[in-house]
Amino acid sequence: MTFHIAIFAAAMCVAAAEDVIKLPAPDADSGVTVTQALKARRSQRAFAEAELSQAELSGLLWAANGFNRPDKRTNATGMNKQTIVLYVCMKSGAYRYDAKANALVKVCGDDLRGAVAGHQPFAAKAPVSIVIAADVSDPVYKAPWDTLTHYDAGIVSGNIYLYCAANGLATVCRGSMDRDALKKALRLPDTVRLHLNHPVGRPVAE
Amino acid sequence: MTFHIAIFAAAMCVAAAEDVIKLPAPDADSGVTVTQALKARRSQRAFAEAELSQAELSGLLWAANGFNRPDKRTNATGMNKQTIVLYVCMKSGAYRYDAKANALVKVCGDDLRGAVAGHQPFAAKAPVSIVIAADVSDPVYKAPWDTLTHYDAGIVSGNIYLYCAANGLATVCRGSMDRDALKKALRLPDTVRLHLNHPVGRPVAE
Repeated sequence: MTFHIAIFAAAMCVAAAEDVIKLPAPDADSGVTVTQALKARRSQRAFAEAELSQAELSGLLWAANGFNRPDKRTNATGMNKQTIVLYVCMKSGAYRYDAKANALVKVCGDDLRGAVAGHQPFAAKAPVSIVIAADVSDPVYKAPWDTLTHYDAGIVSGNIYLYCAANGLATVCRGSMDRDALKKALRLPDTVRLHLNHPVGRPVAE
Repeated sequence: MTFHIAIFAAAMCVAAAEDVIKLPAPDADSGVTVTQALKARRSQRAFAEAELSQAELSGLLWAANGFNRPDKRTNATGMNKQTIVLYVCMKSGAYRYDAKANALVKVCGDDLRGAVAGHQPFAAKAPVSIVIAADVSDPVYKAPWDTLTHYDAGIVSGNIYLYCAANGLATVCRGSMDRDALKKALRLPDTVRLHLNHPVGRPVAE
């Protein structure tokens, strides 16, 4: 058994079970209104290297896909399936956002921002890259609902844009990424679709 | 020529060219912050019959798909294609939202809210039903980008949710509608995809 675990750990990008970042409560309010944020909403592709604070990360992820009620979220999902999962890629590794626990669970010790950036290296400069994923193995996701999680992913992307606009952060929604490399590193089955990604950081002049 | 126009007018749901509702400027700000709106964001399926004011309609449509810069919008779109078009179905008819002119251009004199509601009559009770559409005839929308406008539609849906949450309006994102009836009444070609719809109105207890 130990032998098998050792083989597994050597072959895959793994992280110790204790690699969990408990985030602060996402209660910071920038004071910026929805209207002001919509006026400021834009796509930015130049990022400073400075890390986001844990408070910013918490607010950002909660806005994207957090719980705003005991069993429901800030983002709507088709048939309330709540199938969206966020992977957060940073210098220190790649993490799954555990919305219920408001925590980041490390799933890979490698810096996967380059794989998220793919053929657009600018995207790897942001300190955080959020990958919006969905496991579509539920039989409900057959035609005509086989593209239902695409809409879910778009809603999450919109929330990320609005949070960033309200909090002085730069982001852009991207469809390109090295999906094969990411799915291998994150150990995701074929049923998981990597929809979109969002590099996020402080803006610098483009 | 006149004969042909008469036949056409009799056979199709048409509207006179002067049927344009010029909306007030979308500058009302509810004062509700992005964080507060995300906390309040939810799906509601019971609507009062009361009409929205033109100021609310203007704010709602601008939030969804309006211009926040001379050539760019409140909502991101894949490759900045800005392919999304909104149809606004009300008792008085169905209108295309002309974001540049901030106006509603009547495309059908019929009340199409029933066709939008389809098999869920609750949705026809809202005074306004917004249909989120996209013309995917541009060759860019070939695989792997054939589902790009799905994400665009999701982002618009998210903006509608946030505007409603910030302004005390009820809404729900729906994937169901009588697409055949709507495309016929709105005279849309096969290349237009009707993605999602949002009934919007004042909330009543569900």
